[in-house]
Amino acid sequence: MEKTVATEEREGEDAEQVVNPWQVSAKDGGKIDYDKLIVQFGCQRLDEGLIERVQRLTGRPPHVFLRRGVFFAHRDFNEILDAYERGEKFYLYTGRGPSSEALHLGHLIPFMFTKYLQDAFKVPLVIQLTDDEKCMWKNLSVEESQRLARENAKDIIACGFDITRTFIFSDFDYVGGAFYKNMVKVAKCVTYNKVVGIFGFTGEDHIGKISFPPVQAVPSFPSSFPHLFSGKDKLRCLIPCAIDQDPYFRMTRDVAPRLGYHKPALIESSFFPALQGETGKMSASDPNSAIYVTDSGKDIGSKIRKYAFSGGQDSKEKHMKLGANLEVDIPIKYLGFFLEDDAELEHIRTEYGAGRLFTGQVKDRLIQVLTEIVERHRRARAAVTDEVLCLRLLMDMQYTC
Amino acid sequence: MEKTVATEEREGEDAEQVVNPWQVSAKDGGKIDYDKLIVQFGCQRLDEGLIERVQRLTGRPPHVFLRRGVFFAHRDFNEILDAYERGEKFYLYTGRGPSSEALHLGHLIPFMFTKYLQDAFKVPLVIQLTDDEKCMWKNLSVEESQRLARENAKDIIACGFDITRTFIFSDFDYVGGAFYKNMVKVAKCVTYNKVVGIFGFTGEDHIGKISFPPVQAVPSFPSSFPHLFSGKDKLRCLIPCAIDQDPYFRMTRDVAPRLGYHKPALIESSFFPALQGETGKMSASDPNSAIYVTDSGKDIGSKIRKYAFSGGQDSKEKHMKLGANLEVDIPIKYLGFFLEDDAELEHIRTEYGAGRLFTGQVKDRLIQVLTEIVERHRRARAAVTDEVLCLRLLMDMQYTC
Repeated sequence: MEKTVATEEREGEDAEQVVNPWQVSAKDGGKIDYDKLIVQFGCQRLDEGLIERVQRLTGRPPHVFLRRGVFFAHRDFNEILDAYERGEKFYLYTGRGPSSEALHLGHLIPFMFTKYLQDAFKVPLVIQLTDDEKCMWKNLSVEESQRLARENAKDIIACGFDITRTFIFSDFDYVGGAFYKNMVKVAKCVTYNKVVGIFGFTGEDHIGKISFPPVQAVPSFPSSFPHLFSGKDKLRCLIPCAIDQDPYFRMTRDVAPRLGYHKPALIESSFFPALQGETGKMSASDPNSAIYVTDSGKDIGSKIRKYAFSGGQDSKEKHMKLGANLEVDIPIKYLGFFLEDDAELEHIRTEYGAGRLFTGQVKDRLIQVLTEIVERHRRARAAVTDEVLCLRLLMDMQYTC
Repeated sequence: MEKTVATEEREGEDAEQVVNPWQVSAKDGGKIDYDKLIVQFGCQRLDEGLIERVQRLTGRPPHVFLRRGVFFAHRDFNEILDAYERGEKFYLYTGRGPSSEALHLGHLIPFMFTKYLQDAFKVPLVIQLTDDEKCMWKNLSVEESQRLARENAKDIIACGFDITRTFIFSDFDYVGGAFYKNMVKVAKCVTYNKVVGIFGFTGEDHIGKISFPPVQAVPSFPSSFPHLFSGKDKLRCLIPCAIDQDPYFRMTRDVAPRLGYHKPALIESSFFPALQGETGKMSASDPNSAIYVTDSGKDIGSKIRKYAFSGGQDSKEKHMKLGANLEVDIPIKYLGFFLEDDAELEHIRTEYGAGRLFTGQVKDRLIQVLTEIVERHRRARAAVTDEVLCLRLLMDMQYTC
């Protein structure tokens, strides 16, 4: 048993770096090698051609996260565009495991991008909150997992999705009926050895973990949402997510054709770096590694000034002579995610790289940008009261796309 | 891996006999050794004292299946009686895996006995139809499993349970909500190694099988039925079943205290022998090994005459001299299950054993008895139309015990 579950035997991994739904780490504190990950996982790079095609088909400029390679890999995204070009609709599926009360900026990225896709393609969206998963992995009580799911749902709703085209649900609320039938159909197609190969479970893992992958798989199938997609079993599904979720959907794509569904397509992002540097993704466990949507402007200012890893030189003279090392500079990375003005970003990169701009100045601009985003989010979230949430979730269960 | 899943390592089994939910076989075509099974499984024998206590507490003669040791083993049944004596209620939980369209007499035994318990103790009853299990083990489609569940439900309802105290459900219809939450809570308490030890799963088994034990476990917990037992988490559960189901409830009893519930109590039956002889339980796969509730009087007559293994001697003279071997005689065994008159049964045993009664005469009496039971069942089942079934299942979802 021990042998089959050793991490190095897990599919899509090697000794250099570990990327799976529960662990993201590069060897020796280095950076994640995303090119290597594409090869290891067997997905495709999201190239210029596809991005131009998105622009042409939607008549909108591609999202910053596309232009700047935040979403960098995909599986069959081209087929989604082919179908869309033929006039076929598709639907979006994304989600979140509600493990913490407050979301950080890294958590918002897939939702900001999913909102862009929904607006650009005018398509339905299902958002799964895997409170059952967190109850099992984080050993939270059912009640606490559900509470976190509802708190997170407020933040997600605050991202401003098209309320007439979005269904948000928690597993503890929604599992049953057609959804459960699909869970059983998927589970029948996947052996224990297979999930050990994909997820690296061990004999000491509880069977809840082994039972879970079908739960994350089935929202990829339209029939899991009869109130939304009745009689639309051939509707395609596109999943925007961080690339650490790829193993779940590799399994799902293996199974889909055997159940008569299209393989879900994926569009996958890199990880939002921690303030301390780009060696993994932010961790909810270290509050100083991330900017939270609950941070005040003052919090943001002090966190950026104190913790954001700088590529600037350690003396004014040296900095003016050598300039900043943009490759490792976190303020520049963060601006790359959130400063929408390409011209301004390019100007800052040039001046900072040439040593004519100093870390303090770049950090000040970043603090402005992030404070604006977080303030906007806070205002939007404040409007999502418990009453609004309950009403919203109730509505979701009734409307049809 | 291979090692941990070898059958002989499965808990409660040895090389001599294999008894689990999927296989019942004695070594060398011998009989199941039930005394040994009690030791292997670690349950208790149902002794005279307990049977007298049931009579005293309910003011009814003990059921034939108790008097004659068909139900022969238990776990904590005495605690159920203690609680009942203190004026506490409990509820009954039994079920069926709908693997075949027609039930045979062996299938009716737990339901006939459960009806007696419900009538005697005046307690609520939940009946689980594990259509999800059969979909996974027998590789039936979801639709076919559900169809079989509804057909079987008609036969079960025809057993005449107290409609005001009985909730019958199929997993595909009912899994979700509080039931699913309990599935997750149970799954968190059971490792893969543990289910391998109990059920002998292998790495080649699909994860649906590994996910299933919690589904059969959770009806043992009152909170799985909020519409029936809201706020009654300390209500005790008694499970009448054939002893091959013991592994599921061994697991359930391990988990129950950790979730704040009483361990479910069990009252367990031996297996109804096949017509050909007492080496296992009837198999739905061989129509001539069993009497089905759909058999006509003519079918019953010819099956008993042709296939019921006789302990009579092979010549009239020899029979009159030696008498029948009652130990292996199937007509006598069957009369032991279904001929309620103790005096008449004793008379037949004596005369047949002494060679003054012949196999043909004993078989004729058995044919009368079984035909009467099957005819009565057929009439009751005919009253359970699709409309009645739907209405009944609908009512079930609404009333509270």
